[in-house]
Amino acid sequence: MVNNEKLFKFNGKFIFIGFGSVGQGFLPLLLRHVDILPAQIRIIAADERGRIEAESQNISFEINPLTPQNYRPILSSLLKPGDFLLNVSVNVSSLALIELCHTQGALYLDTCIEPWVGGYADTNLSLSERSNYGLREKALALREKLGSGPTAVLCHGVNPGLVSHWVKQALLNIAHDIGVNLEVLKTRHQWAKLAQMLNISVIQCAERDTQAIHPPKQVDEFVNTWSIDGFVSEGIQPAELGWGSHEKHMPFDGRRHGFGCDAAIYLARPGIQTQVYGWTPLEGAYRGFLITHSESISIADYLTVKEENKLCYRPTVYYAYHPCDAAVLSIHELNGKNFKLQSKTRLPVDDIFDGADELGVLLMGHVKGVYWYGSVLSIHEVRKLAPYNNATSLQVAAGILGGAIWAMKNQQAGIVEPDEMPFEDIQKVAAPYLGKMVGQYSDWTPLSGRGDLFEEDLDKSDPWQFKNFRAT
Amino acid sequence: MVNNEKLFKFNGKFIFIGFGSVGQGFLPLLLRHVDILPAQIRIIAADERGRIEAESQNISFEINPLTPQNYRPILSSLLKPGDFLLNVSVNVSSLALIELCHTQGALYLDTCIEPWVGGYADTNLSLSERSNYGLREKALALREKLGSGPTAVLCHGVNPGLVSHWVKQALLNIAHDIGVNLEVLKTRHQWAKLAQMLNISVIQCAERDTQAIHPPKQVDEFVNTWSIDGFVSEGIQPAELGWGSHEKHMPFDGRRHGFGCDAAIYLARPGIQTQVYGWTPLEGAYRGFLITHSESISIADYLTVKEENKLCYRPTVYYAYHPCDAAVLSIHELNGKNFKLQSKTRLPVDDIFDGADELGVLLMGHVKGVYWYGSVLSIHEVRKLAPYNNATSLQVAAGILGGAIWAMKNQQAGIVEPDEMPFEDIQKVAAPYLGKMVGQYSDWTPLSGRGDLFEEDLDKSDPWQFKNFRAT
Ligand SMILES: NC(=O)c1ccc[n+]([C@@H]2O[C@H](COP(=O)([O-])OP(=O)(O)OC[C@H]3O[C@@H](n4cnc5c(N)ncnc54)[C@H](O)[C@@H]3O)[C@@H](O)[C@H]2O)c1
Ligand SMILES: NC(=O)c1ccc[n+]([C@@H]2O[C@H](COP(=O)([O-])OP(=O)(O)OC[C@H]3O[C@@H](n4cnc5c(N)ncnc54)[C@H](O)[C@@H]3O)[C@@H](O)[C@H]2O)c1
Repeated sequence: MVNNEKLFKFNGKFIFIGFGSVGQGFLPLLLRHVDILPAQIRIIAADERGRIEAESQNISFEINPLTPQNYRPILSSLLKPGDFLLNVSVNVSSLALIELCHTQGALYLDTCIEPWVGGYADTNLSLSERSNYGLREKALALREKLGSGPTAVLCHGVNPGLVSHWVKQALLNIAHDIGVNLEVLKTRHQWAKLAQMLNISVIQCAERDTQAIHPPKQVDEFVNTWSIDGFVSEGIQPAELGWGSHEKHMPFDGRRHGFGCDAAIYLARPGIQTQVYGWTPLEGAYRGFLITHSESISIADYLTVKEENKLCYRPTVYYAYHPCDAAVLSIHELNGKNFKLQSKTRLPVDDIFDGADELGVLLMGHVKGVYWYGSVLSIHEVRKLAPYNNATSLQVAAGILGGAIWAMKNQQAGIVEPDEMPFEDIQKVAAPYLGKMVGQYSDWTPLSGRGDLFEEDLDKSDPWQFKNFRAT
Repeated sequence: MVNNEKLFKFNGKFIFIGFGSVGQGFLPLLLRHVDILPAQIRIIAADERGRIEAESQNISFEINPLTPQNYRPILSSLLKPGDFLLNVSVNVSSLALIELCHTQGALYLDTCIEPWVGGYADTNLSLSERSNYGLREKALALREKLGSGPTAVLCHGVNPGLVSHWVKQALLNIAHDIGVNLEVLKTRHQWAKLAQMLNISVIQCAERDTQAIHPPKQVDEFVNTWSIDGFVSEGIQPAELGWGSHEKHMPFDGRRHGFGCDAAIYLARPGIQTQVYGWTPLEGAYRGFLITHSESISIADYLTVKEENKLCYRPTVYYAYHPCDAAVLSIHELNGKNFKLQSKTRLPVDDIFDGADELGVLLMGHVKGVYWYGSVLSIHEVRKLAPYNNATSLQVAAGILGGAIWAMKNQQAGIVEPDEMPFEDIQKVAAPYLGKMVGQYSDWTPLSGRGDLFEEDLDKSDPWQFKNFRAT
């Protein structure tokens, strides 16, 4: 149940960079759960979307697209110690903003590590440099350089974001259900050892969005339930996955980065042209897109067990995304046109008449088969919970709320990833906006029903090999 | 313009086997253009669809699913010399019906060579036996066996069907536009030589169906603008293509049949999991499905030039099908469930509120680049032309009308393929129901815009190699 409980009294300025679906979706939660006045809030965006919503709530809205040249002058006069910068934009470098916030003593949170505009599709960069692995390594290097300081939360929406906490919750649930007695886990190493002990070979971020719109997608229109720019950008990055220690078959198009933590590989092809088999409780088996995401790398890295620098255990981790039907069609059209973006775009909120976002983590390989743990949030529930949201944006906003409250309460944590934050506290804050949290086991494997009509190149000796998941 | 001109006075019985979208769509054309009484017409189907339409026009409708056991007793008492059997069913063997019609002296026409139920997905059969190549070879063997006799028209809808005539028309149009002076072409060999002279490397049957429905496709529902059974059956047959003499790269999953005319190969994978790049005038570049079709084989075979039994020329021919959006989603769902058909199906006619079926042949490799020739038929036009139709069924019905009138006028032609029939006469009969016939050139090639963001395995020395069309 949603209440109006204030979770923190915030005295500084709260600045939104970007006010698209996520920013607009989060604002009602901010006003409801943080003790803050509209005059403390300020929005900087690059287009008019959301102006009316903001101004009707007496919140200052200005259009001022940030660039590598102007972001310092614009923001350094604004940001004072204890202020909060929420980066929910596209095309603005997360690292640039983090460094500036560090200098100014301001808190920071984003939901994606973004480069400056064009960074995802710059053909002067190597595929590795265009990857999320590359962006994350730069963020880790920045953390190294900056050391301690004001809290800057990386990638804390729902995925990336809450899914890192759900993985921990799912590990505990499985352990409980098979009768393993556990102490309270405190360190990264303990979590990784638990995953290893439970024999988790693969973790999918398994999502099926069934939100249905009217009017339907038109020809030459890209429709998605969250940022079109954001989705297209990550969809044309190379597909990436945390690469588990059980994997026996490097994909023919798989590549190691050759630097950094080495927890992940990439494929020399875009995510919107890479399909994998996944499973969710409501949908059952489906084909999703292996879209690169920061959590695929951070969770795999977090759950790595090494001994004397030798890899002992790591799960394979990736995103198996079945976006809403209109987005599946949009991708199909975009692929047919070699990534030339449609002339029209639409991010439906009021246009949605039915459906839900079913988003969770699917832990595979343990004695009970597979276990999905996550949020099932229907559009009808969303409309009772908060204005200006669809199911997708509200799940993200819930994650931001959890991360932002934690940052306000822990102002000197430096740069942190979701995996390093207290999963129970944050889940509690986010919970009211996630609909039904579902945990469900299944005996599904990617081999179920495969190879009957046509031979496929499968490894039947181990269902959890990546080659079995990949649709070729 | 549609008129009510009667094209033939038919005195026998006219029997429909099957009365789904195609049968229902064709009936109004039959009643309009053939001088026939309702009492001469009889419908045998396996389900209730169309009963009301039939009976409201005083036409006898009975449910009596044909099987290998019962078809002879049921039909042999019915069929007398000069009667007409129109096979627009699924799951009933075309060859069985053709042989029976031959014995009875009845005319025959179908729009697809169907096997008995289950024949497309019988895993006891080899892929080659499940292919359309295999079915066509059996039909050719039957022709050999039966010799001359009552006319039996194979595969004469729109595709297969009219597209064979459009290929000829397109060849003439190109020849005309580049200033080639031609005699009237009479023989197969002459047509093949013309195609060779024009340097036609590839012929796609290039279709983009934009018919849009409301309500939209639901979860667990298969929607298509023509037979769901038919589409799923051919979609899970191996992908097949006429294999051109210019092809340098046999696909890694390509196989020769090792018997028969050898004009085509198949891929060891289903058409609904095989995408190719195509082009149509309205849509531009798109990705379609390489669904096996009889015309891919018959056109390639027809246009083959051999000298002393050595292959000199053959175009690559295949179907690049972008079905309506709801069907793209239905395929995506079906693929995710390993070909387990959805529990609900829908074949929309009244549910369609906009869109068109843009269906033609795309002739590639000649000096003017590519040339598309075909029908653009919008749902709004359809509603002015004939009841009980969507754009897809009306294009098929137009083809049937052309083929059936020809068969009525030429009752002793034996078994014939569309390629062997007089293309101009038949086009004339079909024309009023095809909307706008469009001929358009373009400089599009499958290399346009390819390989920029990610390297692809392309043969840049020859755009018309199949490997350049295939999306991997
Ligand atoms: N972690 C998650 O769960 C999750 C989920 C959805 C979205 N996201 C991320 O959140 C971010 C925002 O998503 P969204 O759906 O709100 O996007 P959106 O496309 O709806 O909105 C983007 C906003 O950024 C603004 N913007 C663009 N260029 C700018 C610039 N140069 N300077 C300032 N503002 C600029 C736009 O004006 C707009 O207000 C994206 O990075 C996206 O990837 C994360
Ligand atoms: N060449 C073309 O252009 C073209 C285009 C569309 C469809 N087709 C073909 O036309 C045929 C019919 O298509 P449709 O869209 O009308 O199909 P449909 O699924 O709408 O209807 C099929 C009909 O067959 C009947 N049927 C099924 N089993 C039967 C049996 N055992 N005995 C008698 N009747 C039986 C059903 O009752 C129904 O009336 C299919 O073979 C399809 O592949 C060809």
